[in-house]
Amino acid sequence: MAPQKKLQGLVAATITPMTQNGEINLSVIGQYVDYLVNEQGVKNVFVNGTTGEGPSLSVQERKQLAEEWVAKGKDKLDQIIIHVGALSLPESKGLAKHAAEIRADGIAVIAPSFFKQVNKDGLVAFLREVASEAPGIPFYYYHIPPLTGIKISVEELLDGMKEQIPTFQGVKFSDKDLLDFGRCVKKNNQGQLVLLYGVDEQLLSALIMGADGAVGSTYNYLGRASNLLLEAFSNGDNVLAQKYQFSTQEFLSFVIAQGFGVAQTKAVMTLVSGIPMGPPRLPLLSASEEFIARVKARLEGVKNCPYS
Amino acid sequence: MAPQKKLQGLVAATITPMTQNGEINLSVIGQYVDYLVNEQGVKNVFVNGTTGEGPSLSVQERKQLAEEWVAKGKDKLDQIIIHVGALSLPESKGLAKHAAEIRADGIAVIAPSFFKQVNKDGLVAFLREVASEAPGIPFYYYHIPPLTGIKISVEELLDGMKEQIPTFQGVKFSDKDLLDFGRCVKKNNQGQLVLLYGVDEQLLSALIMGADGAVGSTYNYLGRASNLLLEAFSNGDNVLAQKYQFSTQEFLSFVIAQGFGVAQTKAVMTLVSGIPMGPPRLPLLSASEEFIARVKARLEGVKNCPYS
Amino acid sequence: MAPQKKLQGLVAATITPMTQNGEINLSVIGQYVDYLVNEQGVKNVFVNGTTGEGPSLSVQERKQLAEEWVAKGKDKLDQIIIHVGALSLPESKGLAKHAAEIRADGIAVIAPSFFKQVNKDGLVAFLREVASEAPGIPFYYYHIPPLTGIKISVEELLDGMKEQIPTFQGVKFSDKDLLDFGRCVKKNNQGQLVLLYGVDEQLLSALIMGADGAVGSTYNYLGRASNLLLEAFSNGDNVLAQKYQFSTQEFLSFVIAQGFGVAQTKAVMTLVSGIPMGPPRLPLLSASEEFIARVKARLEGVKNCPYS
Amino acid sequence: MAPQKKLQGLVAATITPMTQNGEINLSVIGQYVDYLVNEQGVKNVFVNGTTGEGPSLSVQERKQLAEEWVAKGKDKLDQIIIHVGALSLPESKGLAKHAAEIRADGIAVIAPSFFKQVNKDGLVAFLREVASEAPGIPFYYYHIPPLTGIKISVEELLDGMKEQIPTFQGVKFSDKDLLDFGRCVKKNNQGQLVLLYGVDEQLLSALIMGADGAVGSTYNYLGRASNLLLEAFSNGDNVLAQKYQFSTQEFLSFVIAQGFGVAQTKAVMTLVSGIPMGPPRLPLLSASEEFIARVKARLEGVKNCPYS
Repeated sequence: MAPQKKLQGLVAATITPMTQNGEINLSVIGQYVDYLVNEQGVKNVFVNGTTGEGPSLSVQERKQLAEEWVAKGKDKLDQIIIHVGALSLPESKGLAKHAAEIRADGIAVIAPSFFKQVNKDGLVAFLREVASEAPGIPFYYYHIPPLTGIKISVEELLDGMKEQIPTFQGVKFSDKDLLDFGRCVKKNNQGQLVLLYGVDEQLLSALIMGADGAVGSTYNYLGRASNLLLEAFSNGDNVLAQKYQFSTQEFLSFVIAQGFGVAQTKAVMTLVSGIPMGPPRLPLLSASEEFIARVKARLEGVKNCPYS
Repeated sequence: MAPQKKLQGLVAATITPMTQNGEINLSVIGQYVDYLVNEQGVKNVFVNGTTGEGPSLSVQERKQLAEEWVAKGKDKLDQIIIHVGALSLPESKGLAKHAAEIRADGIAVIAPSFFKQVNKDGLVAFLREVASEAPGIPFYYYHIPPLTGIKISVEELLDGMKEQIPTFQGVKFSDKDLLDFGRCVKKNNQGQLVLLYGVDEQLLSALIMGADGAVGSTYNYLGRASNLLLEAFSNGDNVLAQKYQFSTQEFLSFVIAQGFGVAQTKAVMTLVSGIPMGPPRLPLLSASEEFIARVKARLEGVKNCPYS
Repeated sequence: MAPQKKLQGLVAATITPMTQNGEINLSVIGQYVDYLVNEQGVKNVFVNGTTGEGPSLSVQERKQLAEEWVAKGKDKLDQIIIHVGALSLPESKGLAKHAAEIRADGIAVIAPSFFKQVNKDGLVAFLREVASEAPGIPFYYYHIPPLTGIKISVEELLDGMKEQIPTFQGVKFSDKDLLDFGRCVKKNNQGQLVLLYGVDEQLLSALIMGADGAVGSTYNYLGRASNLLLEAFSNGDNVLAQKYQFSTQEFLSFVIAQGFGVAQTKAVMTLVSGIPMGPPRLPLLSASEEFIARVKARLEGVKNCPYS
Repeated sequence: MAPQKKLQGLVAATITPMTQNGEINLSVIGQYVDYLVNEQGVKNVFVNGTTGEGPSLSVQERKQLAEEWVAKGKDKLDQIIIHVGALSLPESKGLAKHAAEIRADGIAVIAPSFFKQVNKDGLVAFLREVASEAPGIPFYYYHIPPLTGIKISVEELLDGMKEQIPTFQGVKFSDKDLLDFGRCVKKNNQGQLVLLYGVDEQLLSALIMGADGAVGSTYNYLGRASNLLLEAFSNGDNVLAQKYQFSTQEFLSFVIAQGFGVAQTKAVMTLVSGIPMGPPRLPLLSASEEFIARVKARLEGVKNCPYS
């Protein structure tokens, strides 16, 4: 594996734009890249993850999206990580191979979670098989037990992981269990891994526990405020960092109270960025008109907020 | 849609045989068909479902398996139902189309369950899109909330389902909620639908509530005893029916206590039928030697049992 | 322990009548006894259980209620079982002793469930301590994992239970797991125990699995129909038994859809029996006016139903 | 209500010492007070909570314990908070009245959680009834959804709480949901409430989100290290604070891996403090000899650790 610069700061978990009839819409990816870099100050992306409806796409569509992100982002973004996890090992391997071929900056894999009897050995063997298809680029494990139901602690996984998977370079940690997270930080005392936190509404809590950065859907539209949070924390200004975190929390609480999921994220991003994200793919349905109207009103109301 | 004879009796949720290195093993399907028909008295199959590791297979593999089951079973089995559910709508549609092309007797679809915010409208729209790719064959909904986490009651789904999906013909109901099941039976008072129960260890309880038949993994190796259970119930001999049910329960409790899943089902079937089912696919691992030894001892011990 | 006649048929889990200001209302217990016997044909009661808001009452109140039920019911009811379970062992023991002193026909104990690390040995030791305070009357274990979160299977508990608790005489089994229930029936092949089922909406499913009778809240107001269900089943008339079960299911589904709990049970019973049950105790709140109006309309509508 | 000095720093959730035959052991409370103050630097206690097996004690025992803690601690401790929550409102009210009579420094109440249909209005009404029995001392709400299953967000509860409960003065927040916690901190911008965090293993994460202090069981035996953590954080030395937090995490992970609950806490405290805490009350069983041996070995091993 070629030497790699370390992934740092914010990573946007990208949304997959779709046309009104539910096809992927590659035509706005270029605009999306520019928006992230110029308007939100976000220079890393995590493509085809849960926010990007990866599991709802066909293998072919995932490859097309990965190619487009690399094509449009290669010169403007710092790192393009392609999520290649799938329930089916051969499909996940094929996606990993493809990501390496198109020269993505890294791949990530979620725990295959249809069957819940997965144990550490089975999971690591699965990840190893996928990673070995892309031996030249970094591999990240995507930990999100609230969605997968796979609760093997990351700290336990880290034992022997690097030996099994030489390209293993980090974790997207999307869970509220900061005991497990803290133990990963402690184990990573040489700094060989990148530990990215994925519960956006409590990023500050993970930063003081030692997070290196963050991956999440809100960095698509709250990237600027979140960068200011990182900066405040890094300057030791906890009060200011708290202020930014509370702003994110207020916005998220508001949308969560309206019912928040991938469809609603698409609607919010369309409103904030002006780039049409389209509807989600079935079985998800579009955010309601009422949701959109309420969020719009709310966004007007926070125009003078620190993060707007 | 051509007129169809009604699916009845037991349906085996088929296991997917694999080679030691984890490839699908089509070479034993013919033998498997004969075993079900001749040794277990089971004449219907449900292919590529959860027992069959459908979610762990590639689209290509699922098509190959479906073709082989149809080729080998067409003249010997009553009905071959192909499960074509997938997280990705385009993939599920492709599988449905293929099942129709190879003249399967029906298709079934599980609720896509990665995203948990699925509601009735979204789910029915998804199912409708898939079913419409196979307009000439019956469509079954596969309800298994303990695995999917999608808890929309079937009784609620039935409202309007036939209008949306003209080929809708029944449900594989794999849940312990016999309130919901009973309400489906009541709603189905014209008998237009086939309601198949999928929790093998309490089949008798569903029969008295009005189940038309059963689909499950244990009918691969406990088919004979289960047919006797059906017969006893049908003859009004509750005591004998109970006896068969208790036998199944004792065996299942025993294997559940050892840790029971797809891998263990493969091991049990290999032991009972003599047909090599092979290991499961990653992230699942093979049943332990200890498990196999214990089950083997147990099976010896029950040779004189009603169902052995 | 004096010889006891076996508990059989339906047992009403009694509601605790309260005055408008939330005090227990002993004055209507006599009327309640007559209503159960004369109008519903129910001759056994289970007092101070969950339906009776046992956990919300003080120890003193529970004793007063038990005394009143015995005083008013002794000559009219077959059996009066007092639930004496509590989180605190000394309180539970005191209640057991009191129940024996007032000559109740039996006591029952729910698993103390505040701490979830309870294992079989600890639970049996707790039950034994309580039962030993009432050595002259039968002891029943009250199994209701959906409420307690204590999931130790009853079949496992039965092993050695009689040796530890000589007065052990049966189980109120309030769970949908009919595998566990069936295994208890099988284990009870000498008929030494009484196995009462407690999920009213699927009683029929438990009967065919071997239930001896039933305990539940709906027998307060659907006792007559449920007795007809028992009779039909006992006559081998499954179709008629189903009909009664479906009637119960329709009514329960209707109230469950409106939000159903102890408060709503009190409102339904007040409507059906005419005996004022009053509000529930805090933290529960009274059923809404809207709930009452809807149920009232529904009850009018089913006047000609088999069970009304 | 008399003016009160603000509760701050660490609060030990006290263990209830018991004799070998399971009676409460009041004779060591004086020694326990001295140990907390002199050896752990902890000057506040939370008595009869979950760590103290409050739910397993009789009302009478809870009063005796409260009296003894006040008698022995009044001159040595800063604040003695008595937990008076119970499933039964009259019992909880009686405990509150008693706590006021013996001049405790405050009372706390957990959500009564046997019935899960509790909503905000019912919960607040319950809390208000209890608080009104102790109008002269501060009232704290004890939020611990992982144990109670009552998931009403604290932020929602705060709306109108002070109007309903004039003595309302703070929250013991024992949950990992730092979104809810952060929103409480934001709402408490006048500092009128004390927000104490109760998940010891991630205290640092709550401190940066604005926690005023902490209540927990580990402060019984890791008080010194935890005070150093508070001090480091307060000095802006995140690296040192992390170091102390990681130490706590390592110890807790170790005991959690052995199976950790109230019984094990008693064993650990006995080992560390030398004060005999005795067995837990049934249905809990004593920590195993193996657990004690392992923890003992571990404690030897960390003697030179920052926190030992």
